[in-house]
Amino acid sequence: MLDANPGDLRAAVRAGEHTGPTAGLCPGYTQANLVALPEADAFDFLRFCVANPKPCPVLDVTDPGSAEPAQMAPGADLRTDVPRYRGFRGGELVDEPPDAREVWRDDLVAFLIGCSFTFERALLAEGLPVRHIDQGVNVPMYRTNVDCTPAGRFSGPLVVSMRPMTPAQAIRATQITSRYGPVHGAPVHVGEPSELGIADLSAPDYGDPVEVRDGEVPVFWACGVTPQAVAVASRPSLMISHAPGHMFVTDARDEKMAML
Amino acid sequence: MLDANPGDLRAAVRAGEHTGPTAGLCPGYTQANLVALPEADAFDFLRFCVANPKPCPVLDVTDPGSAEPAQMAPGADLRTDVPRYRGFRGGELVDEPPDAREVWRDDLVAFLIGCSFTFERALLAEGLPVRHIDQGVNVPMYRTNVDCTPAGRFSGPLVVSMRPMTPAQAIRATQITSRYGPVHGAPVHVGEPSELGIADLSAPDYGDPVEVRDGEVPVFWACGVTPQAVAVASRPSLMISHAPGHMFVTDARDEKMAML
Repeated sequence: MLDANPGDLRAAVRAGEHTGPTAGLCPGYTQANLVALPEADAFDFLRFCVANPKPCPVLDVTDPGSAEPAQMAPGADLRTDVPRYRGFRGGELVDEPPDAREVWRDDLVAFLIGCSFTFERALLAEGLPVRHIDQGVNVPMYRTNVDCTPAGRFSGPLVVSMRPMTPAQAIRATQITSRYGPVHGAPVHVGEPSELGIADLSAPDYGDPVEVRDGEVPVFWACGVTPQAVAVASRPSLMISHAPGHMFVTDARDEKMAML
Repeated sequence: MLDANPGDLRAAVRAGEHTGPTAGLCPGYTQANLVALPEADAFDFLRFCVANPKPCPVLDVTDPGSAEPAQMAPGADLRTDVPRYRGFRGGELVDEPPDAREVWRDDLVAFLIGCSFTFERALLAEGLPVRHIDQGVNVPMYRTNVDCTPAGRFSGPLVVSMRPMTPAQAIRATQITSRYGPVHGAPVHVGEPSELGIADLSAPDYGDPVEVRDGEVPVFWACGVTPQAVAVASRPSLMISHAPGHMFVTDARDEKMAML
């Protein structure tokens, strides 16, 4: 499964044979965050993404009523090809099913949003630390006190992911991730967590805590889990997303996400 | 007027004191293409832009019914602050008024789309030739035989702008414009015009022809006039745009458009 091609992995997910996280699967292929909303909310949400490109870089949008991401994975089915889903109703997380066919509706529009897994491979290729991979856990993510730019009915806090590094490593990581504009790009903050309203690095709001070693500073990137915090704040009647870490694996190559 | 700040220029435009092209005005401030459409077409058009980021990089989207680009120029009025407009009805160009209040409707959504004027300043700063500026004419633009990625009701050809350069200059220009992802980014083609379906460089579809000197090749960038060709192909009931070269001048600094 580790070296499966994306189509084979999605088939295994669809068959219920893989329901776990996707970190490290199909190396070299872009993984994506999922957001599906009723068509009535879709224009406001797309405006929200365009106004907040760092947390919400849009990789694909389905036709209303279609679950096929025609640009990023032609033939795939977003109702079945994500290992675990989250259903939000009126902003409340109500379910985490392995299959979304029961809750999907004919009026939904699905959005694929870039994921930091893409640039992590570039960091690892430089020998930079990606602590949550070393520790075998999910990346720590935090709701911040930074408001996204509102658009229509959608507003809410920026969510960030965090990777500890030395200052010199943080500078190099800034250079590397700046190339990857469509997958969150450069960090949004380096250093003091309290400046983002984060009280305790050891208690992330999503994912798992990781060790910050002596001489390291926390480096924060905008995170594609932001729409889930926005759902809680903005209470759309229905939002279906992936469960954090359980991404949709596309047919697109990671290197296609590099701007230059 | 040449060194006016954007707010003063927009006030002069609104008062009917400036109805000409905007090239060279308010140096350092980002100029933008305008597209306004009925709300019923707005989601399809925004999906079209997201699927075609090189010709249609979205800088701002108004709330439905509002003519204020709140992110790029708070307080401005897109019905009056563009020096010359174009009105398309059912895909036909029907008018080029200096003021759009007569044709504007309460259900319109307006989009600001990045413009190559931003990266031209960076090219000039390197001493690279920008021939249409040297010749004092509008940049030559061509409809190509390259189809944009369709989205909903919108489809149509890619429009490109062209600047002649030596091959070495074209390489440097590729590096420089790659930094400016939100304003068309790197070229889409260098060399043979016929590969884009362009039969005669001396007969552009928009703007003016420019001299191509011995030893120079034509260098083509995706162009923000693309939505006007898409309007002709897709025939929305109403589209209001700027007249080519008569841009909306925003409060945003050009350097903010550089990705890194």
